[in-house]
Amino acid sequence: MSDERRVRDIGEFGLIAALHAALPEAARGGGSVDLGIGDDAAVWRPTPGVPCVVTTDTLVDGVHFRLDWTDWRSLGHKALAVNLSDCAAMGARPTLATVSLALTGDERVADLREMYRGMGALAAAHGVAIAGGDVVRSPRALVITVTVIGECHDGPPLRRDGARPGDLIAVSGTLGAAAAGLRLLAGEGRERAAATADLLVAAHLRPQPRVALGRTLAAHGASAAMDLSDGLSGDLPKLLAASGAGGRVELARLPVAASVRTLFPDDWRELALHGGEDYELLFTFPPEHLVAIRDAADEVDATVTVIGRVVAGDAALVAVEPNGREWRVTPGAFDHFGT
Amino acid sequence: MSDERRVRDIGEFGLIAALHAALPEAARGGGSVDLGIGDDAAVWRPTPGVPCVVTTDTLVDGVHFRLDWTDWRSLGHKALAVNLSDCAAMGARPTLATVSLALTGDERVADLREMYRGMGALAAAHGVAIAGGDVVRSPRALVITVTVIGECHDGPPLRRDGARPGDLIAVSGTLGAAAAGLRLLAGEGRERAAATADLLVAAHLRPQPRVALGRTLAAHGASAAMDLSDGLSGDLPKLLAASGAGGRVELARLPVAASVRTLFPDDWRELALHGGEDYELLFTFPPEHLVAIRDAADEVDATVTVIGRVVAGDAALVAVEPNGREWRVTPGAFDHFGT
Repeated sequence: MSDERRVRDIGEFGLIAALHAALPEAARGGGSVDLGIGDDAAVWRPTPGVPCVVTTDTLVDGVHFRLDWTDWRSLGHKALAVNLSDCAAMGARPTLATVSLALTGDERVADLREMYRGMGALAAAHGVAIAGGDVVRSPRALVITVTVIGECHDGPPLRRDGARPGDLIAVSGTLGAAAAGLRLLAGEGRERAAATADLLVAAHLRPQPRVALGRTLAAHGASAAMDLSDGLSGDLPKLLAASGAGGRVELARLPVAASVRTLFPDDWRELALHGGEDYELLFTFPPEHLVAIRDAADEVDATVTVIGRVVAGDAALVAVEPNGREWRVTPGAFDHFGT
Repeated sequence: MSDERRVRDIGEFGLIAALHAALPEAARGGGSVDLGIGDDAAVWRPTPGVPCVVTTDTLVDGVHFRLDWTDWRSLGHKALAVNLSDCAAMGARPTLATVSLALTGDERVADLREMYRGMGALAAAHGVAIAGGDVVRSPRALVITVTVIGECHDGPPLRRDGARPGDLIAVSGTLGAAAAGLRLLAGEGRERAAATADLLVAAHLRPQPRVALGRTLAAHGASAAMDLSDGLSGDLPKLLAASGAGGRVELARLPVAASVRTLFPDDWRELALHGGEDYELLFTFPPEHLVAIRDAADEVDATVTVIGRVVAGDAALVAVEPNGREWRVTPGAFDHFGT
């Protein structure tokens, strides 16, 4: 059997078997999953008394990824990672996932197996079972939809609407790396690219969902959280609006990787503020929890940077520049239809 | 504001608000759903000690539906119905759903609201909350993915692999109506179409998931079940293969609506045997349960027709014609990639 076989050569049922076989054992079930791929539905046993979360995200070829920029293994990683990031933002432990593939039929089976290997490796690392899904024909566009279910063992679910005036605003990791990686993929700044560029491209192609940190935040009294997919300037206003509060952010405090500053000396601040797809956590908490949260984040190898404070009043976000000048961040997040 | 607004005119966040508003109150949550549309994930509380199921199905424009054949309300109904049918096949009570819409941006907002009304009406009828989802841009194809979560309150989940030699094979409702409706939509037999044709078209556009029957089957000791999406000749071999058994079906027993026989006098048998998308239940049970299952089905207004028997041996399906002639149904179900 040649590696050149296409989906239409082996058909739906051959493909499902090939993809299932590409998953590592640890991503095929066991634990709370009683019945996985192959029946009308997957069956699992939730932990009694624990709230569950469910989240779903769709990636469309040409919109959310480009096959000439990503390898298939990274694509599988990312399709699951963006959902695990939503689980992280709820403070939940992800338990199982379903995958719906809408395929043109022209895809190489070997490529889709690579995609499942990428998804399977990330699933196994987080104890998630790929429990089922759907494969359908979609002649005009490759579309991947992943749904993840999780359980809130560590504390109440972290909603967006719990931020209160006086709470600190913080982010995990650094901002702007994924957007910088995207620019490098697009060819911008490629002449400046060094070995560090690979790290930025990886930040775009294979974001690491902050699952352990999210659980820690739920356990240590964070008041609100969300994950950063549309950039800080797009996402923080959503959290503030949901909470009915305003916010002040000190731009000098934004954590930005040295490589981003070096490779994009003119606009690294813009990348950090407006760049999307960081998949870091954005969260708020009462100031008295700062030390406990920093210590707990340290234990799961996550960095936490306080960037501002929740204030009373309307849901406006004010950015404070290093020179003390203030400006109001225009609301209106990244809109997927470009309005 | 005009009814002619398109998705790109109001953007992602305007659309999400408009769709949420189009849902009936009963489909917006409450009950076990703590947190619905608008956060990183939906939150719900599963009933302690009850197994859960999750199923997902994707509909692609031009493949699974045609916008010149379906109205938008029916499309919303069907996108949810095919998932509720999977829940029914597991014997589960559906509780919540997520909806991922991949839109070109050119869709009329009023049409998508109609779609949500159709989905919402069916959800409300079954006590299902539309709890969240995703809206993304997909310039080349409209793709709808629905995921449904359910709970098995009435008995153990109905798997495909439990059929045993000696069990009876039965189906709910009638077979071939949806395929007949599809032919009428395509113009075939339109000259023969009477008022009854509307019923057949409705069977194709707005299938009624057999949720109550599925729960009854789980409670009354059915040994295996699945829903009929790819036609009896495509689906029964899957159930037999999963169970490691064979089957004999008497073609004279297949329940076929009088309207199908009348409008398609030459090929109604073919429609009943090979026609897809009936979304009736196909199930097996030990013969001693026949009376109890018939009585219980009657209580939920479902008809049950015994069409054959599970036999020992390899997973071959034998069809017995009215004249006693036997033939082996070629395995190989309907394949979505046409191999």
